[in-house]
Amino acid sequence: MVGEQQVVDAAAAPRVPVPPARPLLRTVGDNLMETFFPDDPFRAVAREGAGGRGRRAVAALRYVLPCLEWLPSYSLGALRSDLVAGVTVASLAVPQGISYAKLADLPPIVGLYSSFVPALVYAAMGSSRELAVGTMAVGSLLFAAMLGREAPPGENPELYVRLAFTATFFAGTFQAALGVLRLGFVVDMLSHAAIVGFMGGAATVVCLQQLKGILGLRHFTTATDVVAVVRSVVSQSHEWRWQSVVLGCVFLAFLLITRYFSKKRPKFFWLSAAAPLASVVAGSFLVYFIHGENHGIQVIGYLKKGINPPSARDLLLSSSHTMVALKTGIITGIIGLAEGIAVGRSFAMLKNYHVDGNKEMIAFGLMNIVGSCTSCYLTAGPFSRSAVNYNAGCKTPMSNAVMAVAVMLTLLFLTPLFHYTPLVVLSAIIMSAMLGVIDYQAVGRLWKVDKFDFCVCVGAYLGVVFGNIEIGLSIAVGISILRILLFVARPKTTVLGKMPNSTNFRRTDQYTAAQAVPGLLVLRIDSPIYFANAGYLRERITRWINHEEDRIKAESLESLKCVVLDMSAVASIDMSGTNMLEDLKNNLDRRSIQIALANPGSEIMRKLDKSNVLRLIGDEWIFLTVGEACDHAQRNCKTGTDAVQCTVAV
Amino acid sequence: MVGEQQVVDAAAAPRVPVPPARPLLRTVGDNLMETFFPDDPFRAVAREGAGGRGRRAVAALRYVLPCLEWLPSYSLGALRSDLVAGVTVASLAVPQGISYAKLADLPPIVGLYSSFVPALVYAAMGSSRELAVGTMAVGSLLFAAMLGREAPPGENPELYVRLAFTATFFAGTFQAALGVLRLGFVVDMLSHAAIVGFMGGAATVVCLQQLKGILGLRHFTTATDVVAVVRSVVSQSHEWRWQSVVLGCVFLAFLLITRYFSKKRPKFFWLSAAAPLASVVAGSFLVYFIHGENHGIQVIGYLKKGINPPSARDLLLSSSHTMVALKTGIITGIIGLAEGIAVGRSFAMLKNYHVDGNKEMIAFGLMNIVGSCTSCYLTAGPFSRSAVNYNAGCKTPMSNAVMAVAVMLTLLFLTPLFHYTPLVVLSAIIMSAMLGVIDYQAVGRLWKVDKFDFCVCVGAYLGVVFGNIEIGLSIAVGISILRILLFVARPKTTVLGKMPNSTNFRRTDQYTAAQAVPGLLVLRIDSPIYFANAGYLRERITRWINHEEDRIKAESLESLKCVVLDMSAVASIDMSGTNMLEDLKNNLDRRSIQIALANPGSEIMRKLDKSNVLRLIGDEWIFLTVGEACDHAQRNCKTGTDAVQCTVAV
Repeated sequence: MVGEQQVVDAAAAPRVPVPPARPLLRTVGDNLMETFFPDDPFRAVAREGAGGRGRRAVAALRYVLPCLEWLPSYSLGALRSDLVAGVTVASLAVPQGISYAKLADLPPIVGLYSSFVPALVYAAMGSSRELAVGTMAVGSLLFAAMLGREAPPGENPELYVRLAFTATFFAGTFQAALGVLRLGFVVDMLSHAAIVGFMGGAATVVCLQQLKGILGLRHFTTATDVVAVVRSVVSQSHEWRWQSVVLGCVFLAFLLITRYFSKKRPKFFWLSAAAPLASVVAGSFLVYFIHGENHGIQVIGYLKKGINPPSARDLLLSSSHTMVALKTGIITGIIGLAEGIAVGRSFAMLKNYHVDGNKEMIAFGLMNIVGSCTSCYLTAGPFSRSAVNYNAGCKTPMSNAVMAVAVMLTLLFLTPLFHYTPLVVLSAIIMSAMLGVIDYQAVGRLWKVDKFDFCVCVGAYLGVVFGNIEIGLSIAVGISILRILLFVARPKTTVLGKMPNSTNFRRTDQYTAAQAVPGLLVLRIDSPIYFANAGYLRERITRWINHEEDRIKAESLESLKCVVLDMSAVASIDMSGTNMLEDLKNNLDRRSIQIALANPGSEIMRKLDKSNVLRLIGDEWIFLTVGEACDHAQRNCKTGTDAVQCTVAV
Repeated sequence: MVGEQQVVDAAAAPRVPVPPARPLLRTVGDNLMETFFPDDPFRAVAREGAGGRGRRAVAALRYVLPCLEWLPSYSLGALRSDLVAGVTVASLAVPQGISYAKLADLPPIVGLYSSFVPALVYAAMGSSRELAVGTMAVGSLLFAAMLGREAPPGENPELYVRLAFTATFFAGTFQAALGVLRLGFVVDMLSHAAIVGFMGGAATVVCLQQLKGILGLRHFTTATDVVAVVRSVVSQSHEWRWQSVVLGCVFLAFLLITRYFSKKRPKFFWLSAAAPLASVVAGSFLVYFIHGENHGIQVIGYLKKGINPPSARDLLLSSSHTMVALKTGIITGIIGLAEGIAVGRSFAMLKNYHVDGNKEMIAFGLMNIVGSCTSCYLTAGPFSRSAVNYNAGCKTPMSNAVMAVAVMLTLLFLTPLFHYTPLVVLSAIIMSAMLGVIDYQAVGRLWKVDKFDFCVCVGAYLGVVFGNIEIGLSIAVGISILRILLFVARPKTTVLGKMPNSTNFRRTDQYTAAQAVPGLLVLRIDSPIYFANAGYLRERITRWINHEEDRIKAESLESLKCVVLDMSAVASIDMSGTNMLEDLKNNLDRRSIQIALANPGSEIMRKLDKSNVLRLIGDEWIFLTVGEACDHAQRNCKTGTDAVQCTVAV
């Protein structure tokens, strides 16, 4: 709202119309649509409107099962690419699955189960083409931390596993519910900075946990904070196994180097993808031949053959532990969504197509619900895997199906091969993956662009590293929400001035050339006016006026006749807002200062009209542009003393 | 950002400058000042800068103790008005104090105590001249409901009283803390609609509770919801005392009529002010002479003489009940602030002076802390009392001191007179007061102006009436917060069009005259762009573009060459926001559509510059006005296909 065309006679200028009243239901409907269906998801269905019910049904089905969109036109070329990608991802998924399962204190086999069924579900329902389904390190750690406290896996492993399935079930239900209720925006409430900090902290903690495997320790603290871990490591220095340390460092170095290479040359992506499997194979052979288990190198041990057994019966939906499972499920569910959707969207952005957040939530939800009934634990779309999938040139979610089949074959025939796989290798795999998650550059950018975001990020990081994951998460969420409230409670108000030889009005604090119009004060309000900021805005505007009058006194200028409020940035207003304007008007009347509004939107006009504030201010003091308002005020306002009886030349 | 002057050559137009980098500390400092000291409280102190340390100290002291501002210039005339007002308020305060104490299940005498000490504290520290300190009905009811559950006053009255003092202490500490930490805006998070609904519901519940007194029942449900109350009333129909019913109705009628009169003719304010005391006196005499206590009319009974005994020792700061007291204190504290500050501000608005919210919080806090150590329970600035004070023509907070002295005299000499005061009169007093609190007109206005606010209001009301006070409160707060989040997560984006024979750009949905510029899409974003809405905005803008292209295809118009984002309403942007713009730019490049920004603020320019998005978009695509942006785009963009290599005529 700034920058106007000189209008010789304000009366001739187009007035701001009060929009005609609209049927209540229609307004409500429109608002609900805008709020919950901003992405217009049923466009495709609506398009088929002409095609009759049958085609509409097909379109709807296609909306629910995106695979129906790409399957019909699925080509052999696409299949080839997806095969390559799927197999590559599988070679990463198998060792990662086992490692993360260990991280979650679950039987290694569960990790493999979790890369099978959920991937199939996502292949059918997912709308991202690059996302590769699998378990996530942070989620696994959260399971170990939150559920382990309730049912130490050491004491009662069976209960612990059941709790894990239950938590997964709740996570899935929660995710699906968010999607169905179109509450996708809840995920947006976690700021990017908070996520970076939280993820970084979690990765650090996970790395520290791996010291257990690398050093070959048998006992280890269950606490996750750096202090406890370091103490527990140092206190057991006599227990360190040099063999395991050597092995670990060798493999870690190998993995990091391969990752470095494939980062350098994207066409070497397969290096980093195959490296984990390679190290698992190498490690297993090594241990097998040198009988490493006798030299204090722990191995995975027996893995039973066969695909996922059903686990629906194991869910503890009504027991004393249910609440813990629920809490764990909700927290991990949110984190899974936050990461998964972010990953999906960033790749979609690269290939220039759109990922529907709410659809993804439903897909994730069903994926986990089905998973919880087939011996899987929490799955999402981890970045590392999806990146490999993308670099391997996947074309459709079919790559997930391919991976699932590959994992299934592993489950059916190859599990015995993992008997001699040393845990230290798994630790190395996790560590190298986690070191990739810590995003230094992002932190640097945050510092450069937005110091506050930087603090949020660091706060979350420190909370995780020195407190525990929940503390870090609540710090992140807390600061994010507080920031939103501050944004809302402290909107910007700026003084506008006239730009030389033009009629544009611009912020005086931004453009030194902008000159105040004598006798007038032009203020712009940069936010909707409603209960959360009405009080503040009243005070702030009054303060602007006081300052202006002080200045006028000090420089003995022409006294203040009129305050022009530029309303074009005010998107909406509520009862408290209209009351605020009413108070302001009365207040200024007493100080015999006229008030004028420039370019209020239609919602504003409607509300002002209904609340009679429009009549109070006077229709003739509402203008299309700031320029007209100023001209009019200068022509029709006597100096201060009797400005109230401003006469209007209409 | 709308309305521009035709500029013949875009190159000649004033460019949008990138503000020079500012020292970090200074930026942080300014932001903190704007956020926490928007009302510039230290202005007075700063003014004395020249006057040296001494005078600055005086000014600071004056800031802490507002009474130092008006005492020096306190005139005899003011004293006379304050005497009248104070005595009038006292005549209301005494019966009301006793009644509300009964409502809170506390000994009646505590109600009198609570009108003495806190009033003195506020007289010294309060910055509102009309606010009259006293106990509040809703707060009293909350005490009875929340503390009564923990320690039924019937079983252990002594513990209950101590809990009440403790809760008051916590309320005060919480209020003071909010004030000292300048977190006044927390109170604003309760929307006006929510408060109206909640207060109305509470008033209804309080009235229902009075049926006990009116019907002369001895046993009554502790539940507050309408169902339980009605059941308990009906089930005891045989216990009803006609004498008490008659007495109650007579007095209630008397009180309502007087209130009606003084509403009609403000100069009869003393009628409504004196009526309660009058009915107490009349009731007492009546009961005394007809020995009403023998006819089943319950009376207050013995009140011991003397002023507030110290109660600091009674505070339960570390017991099993502390948590309940803390919870009660925080909730009632917030409600007390919400009502008190609202009352203070509305009267200040009438007399055209300013009430400092944070200062008031500190005053309220100390008032309650001191009160809790002198046998008082929660006090605030109830509307009914303050209105009487205002109508009685009070000039300064001195009227509170006068009232306090009057109450003190009552405590010292007149308490025996209340021995025969019938409870039914107290019930009548409470009822008439509460019927005044239910604000029908406000609800009507809400329905007329804002349907959503109306729903919030009704929701809170029903929650209180059919659930309980906490439920109602959490509904109110919950909806308010949800609404804020929605406001934030779903900002407005509107399409702008060129107004005929002017260069103003206005919303096409508001002004039918506004015409789209061929080949261009002008969008205005009406909110800061940050993590909470960046994702949504990306989707919404993309959707606008898609729709536009559909339209173009349908009507086979000139293809879309350039999207102009009007940024003038974007007050700030964060990392997620800049990332969003970056994504959008890349995305549009792929669709070979140019992007241009119009009138971004200095914060935006700084952030865009630091995050290199400015370089990505290109300095030559940032414009001072939408008009310039459009002219430039039309001149320099080839049609769609190769818009990316737009040449710039600079």
